Amino acid sequence: MQVDLNCDMGEGYGRWTLGDDAAMLDVVTSANVACGYHAGDPNIMVETARLAKERGVSVGAHPGFNDLWGFGRRVIRGDTMAEIERMVAYQIGAMQACAALAGHRVTHVKAHGSLGNLTNEEPDFARAIGRAIKGVDPALVYVTMPGLPTERAAEELGLEQAAEIFADRAYEDDGQLMSRKKPGSVLHDADEAARRVLEMVREGVILCASGKRIPARIETICVHGDGPNAVAMARRLRAVLEADGVRIRPFKTA
Amino acid sequence: MQVDLNCDMGEGYGRWTLGDDAAMLDVVTSANVACGYHAGDPNIMVETARLAKERGVSVGAHPGFNDLWGFGRRVIRGDTMAEIERMVAYQIGAMQACAALAGHRVTHVKAHGSLGNLTNEEPDFARAIGRAIKGVDPALVYVTMPGLPTERAAEELGLEQAAEIFADRAYEDDGQLMSRKKPGSVLHDADEAARRVLEMVREGVILCASGKRIPARIETICVHGDGPNAVAMARRLRAVLEADGVRIRPFKTA
Amino acid sequence: MQVDLNCDMGEGYGRWTLGDDAAMLDVVTSANVACGYHAGDPNIMVETARLAKERGVSVGAHPGFNDLWGFGRRVIRGDTMAEIERMVAYQIGAMQACAALAGHRVTHVKAHGSLGNLTNEEPDFARAIGRAIKGVDPALVYVTMPGLPTERAAEELGLEQAAEIFADRAYEDDGQLMSRKKPGSVLHDADEAARRVLEMVREGVILCASGKRIPARIETICVHGDGPNAVAMARRLRAVLEADGVRIRPFKTA
Amino acid sequence: MQVDLNCDMGEGYGRWTLGDDAAMLDVVTSANVACGYHAGDPNIMVETARLAKERGVSVGAHPGFNDLWGFGRRVIRGDTMAEIERMVAYQIGAMQACAALAGHRVTHVKAHGSLGNLTNEEPDFARAIGRAIKGVDPALVYVTMPGLPTERAAEELGLEQAAEIFADRAYEDDGQLMSRKKPGSVLHDADEAARRVLEMVREGVILCASGKRIPARIETICVHGDGPNAVAMARRLRAVLEADGVRIRPFKTA
Repeated sequence: MQVDLNCDMGEGYGRWTLGDDAAMLDVVTSANVACGYHAGDPNIMVETARLAKERGVSVGAHPGFNDLWGFGRRVIRGDTMAEIERMVAYQIGAMQACAALAGHRVTHVKAHGSLGNLTNEEPDFARAIGRAIKGVDPALVYVTMPGLPTERAAEELGLEQAAEIFADRAYEDDGQLMSRKKPGSVLHDADEAARRVLEMVREGVILCASGKRIPARIETICVHGDGPNAVAMARRLRAVLEADGVRIRPFKTA
Repeated sequence: MQVDLNCDMGEGYGRWTLGDDAAMLDVVTSANVACGYHAGDPNIMVETARLAKERGVSVGAHPGFNDLWGFGRRVIRGDTMAEIERMVAYQIGAMQACAALAGHRVTHVKAHGSLGNLTNEEPDFARAIGRAIKGVDPALVYVTMPGLPTERAAEELGLEQAAEIFADRAYEDDGQLMSRKKPGSVLHDADEAARRVLEMVREGVILCASGKRIPARIETICVHGDGPNAVAMARRLRAVLEADGVRIRPFKTA
Repeated sequence: MQVDLNCDMGEGYGRWTLGDDAAMLDVVTSANVACGYHAGDPNIMVETARLAKERGVSVGAHPGFNDLWGFGRRVIRGDTMAEIERMVAYQIGAMQACAALAGHRVTHVKAHGSLGNLTNEEPDFARAIGRAIKGVDPALVYVTMPGLPTERAAEELGLEQAAEIFADRAYEDDGQLMSRKKPGSVLHDADEAARRVLEMVREGVILCASGKRIPARIETICVHGDGPNAVAMARRLRAVLEADGVRIRPFKTA
Repeated sequence: MQVDLNCDMGEGYGRWTLGDDAAMLDVVTSANVACGYHAGDPNIMVETARLAKERGVSVGAHPGFNDLWGFGRRVIRGDTMAEIERMVAYQIGAMQACAALAGHRVTHVKAHGSLGNLTNEEPDFARAIGRAIKGVDPALVYVTMPGLPTERAAEELGLEQAAEIFADRAYEDDGQLMSRKKPGSVLHDADEAARRVLEMVREGVILCASGKRIPARIETICVHGDGPNAVAMARRLRAVLEADGVRIRPFKTA
């Protein structure tokens, strides 16, 4: 039994930094690297890929809306789906080139922030990201959420996918993440989060806040890179999984 | 005997456009497409690649400084050469992805504006662009100027190159373009420009303003895409060359 | 009887231009100048203010979302109303300084694009823009639409307002502009548009597409600055109004 | 005897922060606030002005090149001096509006990073900033360096000025800051720096690295806001000055 740990990284810009990527790269097995639209720049992208390569960590493109100010968390409406597709393709290509400069190779794509949320809520967005992946490199893995539009888009387009759960987020009965505005939506206890993840991975289910269990293959677990305890929580999660015999491995290696 | 005609394209941004790319794509055989840093965006990049593909025109990445406001014409000092390399790699990758979405493929790289000028003046810049090309895809052609640092950088790095002359610019005795500030630096007469180019191509020389002749293989001729007479001048040049039996062909096809 | 003609201007950026501002400044009496967030830059802002000053045209700030790529036409959600207020205040202040450099002074504020639409649909947005105006300079006039949230926000905040109608747009029965997606939403015939505007100004009503008449004081008429016939349509409108004895004057002079 | 302590602030952007502004605002008496071009955004600008207002700290505009990526530290060549003037005016106006929203008022202007360096090296830049100040509000104080082009520009333009020294930087014999590339250019010892500043303020001289003493009225001392010991160094400096009877006061209050 094995699973991947993934984390968003490279989320600084120019003079600004965010999170402790070097430390987190010692814990996770896949890094989703911001591509310059909501965060990240060529220097950070190459450096993150280089650090990942050294540690055997896989790198993915982490495209978002072109909104540095809003860090990709504002919802931007008005682009056609063809425009969303192109915007994502651009970022994937940029990341591929930066990875190449670091002697590494992009293995997957995961949409960021509000763009990522839209892909799990609206099939049109899920398909636009899928078409971008397919158009740029059909061998790239699409990081999807079980039972949601991303999963269906990947199936329709014949793309390889990696089903993702979130280590510290509660689930609604339809498999969506519970809104951060609701109490209990974010798990703050590292041990509780780790035990819950272990059960989900072991049993092949998503454990909803209601107690409902949704059968799901789980291939990767998202841990968060910012916040004061990010690295500690990720380490704890990894330790609990490994202690139970789960191997932590990238879902795809370069 | 054959030669390529190249032109900078895709130099709009969002709501803004520049030049008549569709008309110019009926004349030239290679298009250098802005990559979003000084101009261009994913929509324009994909659309330009699509139009080029339809007409059998080769596309190249046309990276510049990250300066939309200054259109890549301001000189920006302060980046290390590793940073220049990454910034160019990013743009090449982005353009490759956009070309892929259009069913096309990038064949070459030519630096834009003040970044382009720096590559022909300072060997460090020439090599940084060369390393970006080599790091992303060593099969890409480096568009260089005869006798200048770009030519030497391409040689050092073992990159295929296409030697370029400018249809409407006067040359100094060292092979550099004459500064636009000097009288006579820009040729405005289409016939005169065409005759001069024909002689340079036929004889394998750069004709300097002083009368000096610098032996040079000439593989591509740059025509300008903006200005009221841009398309007319390019058509005239092509007609003169073809009337003399010179075939107009891309230096490399996708 | 008098009324103002206003037009959005200064909508280029760096190397890019849009519309024929110089020609339009000979027709209108108020110019709404883009402030660098969705279009415009300090050079264009100062130059537009200078041209306006020469012709006795009043200038206003025309703030939008920070979205050069989308030209302020994409709807961006996620900012708090305090953030919207600050973003608008920033742009007003920038425009005031640019006007000062041109020896001119800002008299009014009108929100652009999707931000403008939101102010006429959602009271929170209307108030946020109103608070920005009041916080920066309570003597500035708020350009509002009769019967809509902007009008009420101006009243609540005690701001002077100028009630605006659009020369070429059809109205719904609630006083909202008809969506551009509906047939008949945009008037293309200059004479028809001019006659309709004249009737609205003369009678103090908004003429809805249904025939409904909404009583309204009308202080300014918006004409569009882009499109091939923009200047001709504006000239025709002004001629029709003046022929009927309506004086064309700024609603406020600097 | 009194002197001002100033510090650059508000140097985050959107999601990103830099330095501990709240702590530093308890130490200094003037804050130079980034205006959105190299750092800063309307939210940060208003918030910084609000915190400053609460503590009786004066705020100034801290304009830089429009280069978020390079944090205003890259030298950008190609703008005319009229363009530099407008770019600075824009930022001053934006800051004035943000200060107004916070119930505060801008008292001074100090150029940032490479733009600031250029103003102390090239009279054209010094005058362009001076003209921007004068054009926007001639009552604003120009922060200048003794004996350098900014001082002369302020005199020529009749602007009030505040002569600045740097707490932790060595001086050349011509009154320029020693290049950071030279050994000894930056003072790291808080006590040594404080003693040196005290002597300069007490005696009205700039103490050069060579031992040369340049007579100079000194009205404000720049302390740095980033770096791990920034706040501690500033506190130490203030304590040493106050212990010697020097009052720490803004050079101008709102």
